Amino acid sequence: MPADSNIVAVEEKKEDGLFQSLTERSKHEDFIRRAVDLLVERVVFGRASRTSKVVEWSAPEDIKQAIDLKVRDGPASHEELLAFMADVARYSVNTAHPYFVNQLFSSVDPYGLIGQWLTDALNPSVYTFEVAPVFTLMEEEVLREMRSIVGWADGEGDGIFCPGGSIANGYAISCARSYFYPEIKNKGVYAVPKLVIFTSELAHYSTKKMAVFMGIGSDNCILVKADENGRMDVNDLERKINEAIEAGATPFLVTSTSGTTVYGAFDPIVPISNICKKYNLWLHVDAAWGGGALMSRKHRNLLNGIELADSVTWNPHKLLAAPQQCSTFLLKHKNVLKEAHSSNAQYLFQKDKFYDTSYDTGDKHIQCGRRADVLKFWFMWKAKGSEGFEKHVEKLFDNANYFLEHIRQREGFRLVIPKPECTNIMFWYIPKCLRSCENEPNYYERLHKVAPKIKERMIKEGSMMVTYQPQGNLVNFFRIVFQNSALDHKDMIYFANEFERLGSDIVV
Amino acid sequence: MPADSNIVAVEEKKEDGLFQSLTERSKHEDFIRRAVDLLVERVVFGRASRTSKVVEWSAPEDIKQAIDLKVRDGPASHEELLAFMADVARYSVNTAHPYFVNQLFSSVDPYGLIGQWLTDALNPSVYTFEVAPVFTLMEEEVLREMRSIVGWADGEGDGIFCPGGSIANGYAISCARSYFYPEIKNKGVYAVPKLVIFTSELAHYSTKKMAVFMGIGSDNCILVKADENGRMDVNDLERKINEAIEAGATPFLVTSTSGTTVYGAFDPIVPISNICKKYNLWLHVDAAWGGGALMSRKHRNLLNGIELADSVTWNPHKLLAAPQQCSTFLLKHKNVLKEAHSSNAQYLFQKDKFYDTSYDTGDKHIQCGRRADVLKFWFMWKAKGSEGFEKHVEKLFDNANYFLEHIRQREGFRLVIPKPECTNIMFWYIPKCLRSCENEPNYYERLHKVAPKIKERMIKEGSMMVTYQPQGNLVNFFRIVFQNSALDHKDMIYFANEFERLGSDIVV
Repeated sequence: MPADSNIVAVEEKKEDGLFQSLTERSKHEDFIRRAVDLLVERVVFGRASRTSKVVEWSAPEDIKQAIDLKVRDGPASHEELLAFMADVARYSVNTAHPYFVNQLFSSVDPYGLIGQWLTDALNPSVYTFEVAPVFTLMEEEVLREMRSIVGWADGEGDGIFCPGGSIANGYAISCARSYFYPEIKNKGVYAVPKLVIFTSELAHYSTKKMAVFMGIGSDNCILVKADENGRMDVNDLERKINEAIEAGATPFLVTSTSGTTVYGAFDPIVPISNICKKYNLWLHVDAAWGGGALMSRKHRNLLNGIELADSVTWNPHKLLAAPQQCSTFLLKHKNVLKEAHSSNAQYLFQKDKFYDTSYDTGDKHIQCGRRADVLKFWFMWKAKGSEGFEKHVEKLFDNANYFLEHIRQREGFRLVIPKPECTNIMFWYIPKCLRSCENEPNYYERLHKVAPKIKERMIKEGSMMVTYQPQGNLVNFFRIVFQNSALDHKDMIYFANEFERLGSDIVV
Repeated sequence: MPADSNIVAVEEKKEDGLFQSLTERSKHEDFIRRAVDLLVERVVFGRASRTSKVVEWSAPEDIKQAIDLKVRDGPASHEELLAFMADVARYSVNTAHPYFVNQLFSSVDPYGLIGQWLTDALNPSVYTFEVAPVFTLMEEEVLREMRSIVGWADGEGDGIFCPGGSIANGYAISCARSYFYPEIKNKGVYAVPKLVIFTSELAHYSTKKMAVFMGIGSDNCILVKADENGRMDVNDLERKINEAIEAGATPFLVTSTSGTTVYGAFDPIVPISNICKKYNLWLHVDAAWGGGALMSRKHRNLLNGIELADSVTWNPHKLLAAPQQCSTFLLKHKNVLKEAHSSNAQYLFQKDKFYDTSYDTGDKHIQCGRRADVLKFWFMWKAKGSEGFEKHVEKLFDNANYFLEHIRQREGFRLVIPKPECTNIMFWYIPKCLRSCENEPNYYERLHKVAPKIKERMIKEGSMMVTYQPQGNLVNFFRIVFQNSALDHKDMIYFANEFERLGSDIVV
């Protein structure tokens, strides 16, 4: 039956208002049930086992051949649509696979998935209590609990869900400058002598990118040196603050990182906070990656002093493995978000509603319409309890440590950082042709070419996905990232073996 | 069986890598199947009929009583989780209901929903081809097709999916200033004399809000007068541009609106474009709401001249009824997005990959991790074809016109704008106590109180949801919004009757 009938026939028969274009419930219900079977059988469970591929690699032109991506004037049939679903899944990377350890997110949690599916079925936009009553209260509850875990008394403060950690780090810039210089809201940054931000040279690129977007400019995002473990050098921070002041600029914000993107380093919050107090600067902690460690009594000391921060970015979709996307921006201060961003649009935030309009929280955001990212995380939290997250996090650290100690001793592996702090482990894999060539003049030039070659092999085989990158003066190295607690020590051996299998005979 | 076993038992048994915390597939599969049944039966179809309620109104404190929103240390059972799902659905507003006509989004499309569910199951983040091959190509295809519909030859140009129309309008600011003043990227807005933006006083609040966020300041977002139909007054635009130049400011952007938020007015693009050419300004068209009319040969003339724009915001989740959230930012220019935003993070956008890295498009965005919002829309487009969207849009306009003509003649209704251009219709409902009191001194003061009272009744009964707002000097009026093409003329009569039933005896 052609799918267009839902639109065409709507003028003849319309019993049911649920769907924009429903003619007969039975027809749509049949499609939905078949589609859901396909989703559960072939997507959620069908790609699950360790013996399946992480990716069915195909070049762009081959995918375009395999899937008819072009849209058409006329409709596709339900059969065709089901085939599209299967093909989209087939050629997509299996980010749920245990051997997808390529990014700071992975896995599909069953409760997170169902929470997401429920959100989709309810199709909310979260700006007023009137339109999203449950989601509004749920956000309030989850954000308060997260603030409480950060260490702010009674979970006081404020917070929002954001479309990603980058934008959360942008909110930190916006809140900090509004807090110190509220006149910027009306006058723009022209109102204040050149504003400057400080963050580590190893911080995520988003602080600089958002500084550009927000009119501050990349030159005014000053990068502080990191030490050999990747942690911010506090002496260099103070030196650079003084240099900026002497140059007539206006320091207002330090963004410290808890879990840097590449090395997983945790900047020392307590001394950074002391500097911020001394110079009256806003302290933002970007714990997008490392924030999940706060759920573990054993590992939360990595973030010692986080309660001294003015604001925190924490993405549950990273270390806590919530589905994409689940990012939060948390503040110690109660009214800064609203003061910085509110525009009091009368068409949406009417003050003469019959209920307490302090529940209409949308004006704190720069978004207007906004997806609800809270339910999936709340549902996971309900399903596992805080204890469940704690066990999850401790499993990740245990696996990472096991992998670290394994490759530390294994031939062909060389660590980039001797003691990584988070669950990402960085290493070079040295193929046979390069072993004991370290003193040759072109050694690093050759080593630089190894990772891309191994990566190509691994993707084409689909046996795992691990990312690589250069960093500063260091040539390409691998970074394996653990946030899937279904992995165990045997998997750690698998990864090491697989590097050997794919890489030992590489010739560069 | 307690849900925590997925975490606890993972150390004992781990056959299957799909889920972060899977112990036995059968147990999770059982939960997922029961949850899916609940979703399909009780959420998707169970809330569908016109006789169900749009909302089960409860005050915040009552919802907190009804749903245990607090997270706990320990896990909930699967039974408890299923009960939570039912309760979350019960107390959430039924935005899929035909009588939810409260916002610029509504309805649940069956194909959009399945597209969204498939996206969730695949859990992608769209920044590199390597990690999101299908989604990357699908975005490219859909954005090209949308540009082609806008009217740019061969769909040339560039574009991105954004987390909402507000941020899309922010991208317009960013692209425009980068295009004219590329030095801002490094130096910040300090590099250029005070930048100013022009938009209509009836434009969406996001342009001003983003101007604040982006360091330009609300005073430098200059509001142009609208005429009696809500369309930008082009003479006033030119006057204000000249005033700004005389005051030493730097005009660089005009944001024109196609489908204003409250009145649904379409600013006249051709004359605005002429002004932009004359003064060398970027023309952005915010067609977040009205863009869907481009799919209809009958109604696309409302956006005449849109191909003259430098950039366009168009949200398929509005008039085209894609699920939340589906927003696009489209440009005629090919490289501006990249020049304005790229930061070339080496850890993510490696240039020595084995495939053509021009497919790694994430650096054009200010987001790093990013949900895939394309698949649901692509899947709807496949299911309906362009013809299906055209019929959908024409149905909406037909319904809106029918409702307009009906209330134009009906006692108790008074139109705010005689000839609204889009599918939102604005009116006052005049209760009996106010009829023929128009000359009394406190008439408007009393009329202002009517809409909140009717709104309270309608929400408490759950019989429909229609929003109200004041605007400028005008007291509170209703705005009914049509984007659900399952509605028909009988529904239009229902709405009018319902206003009469709820409102005629209101005493103010």
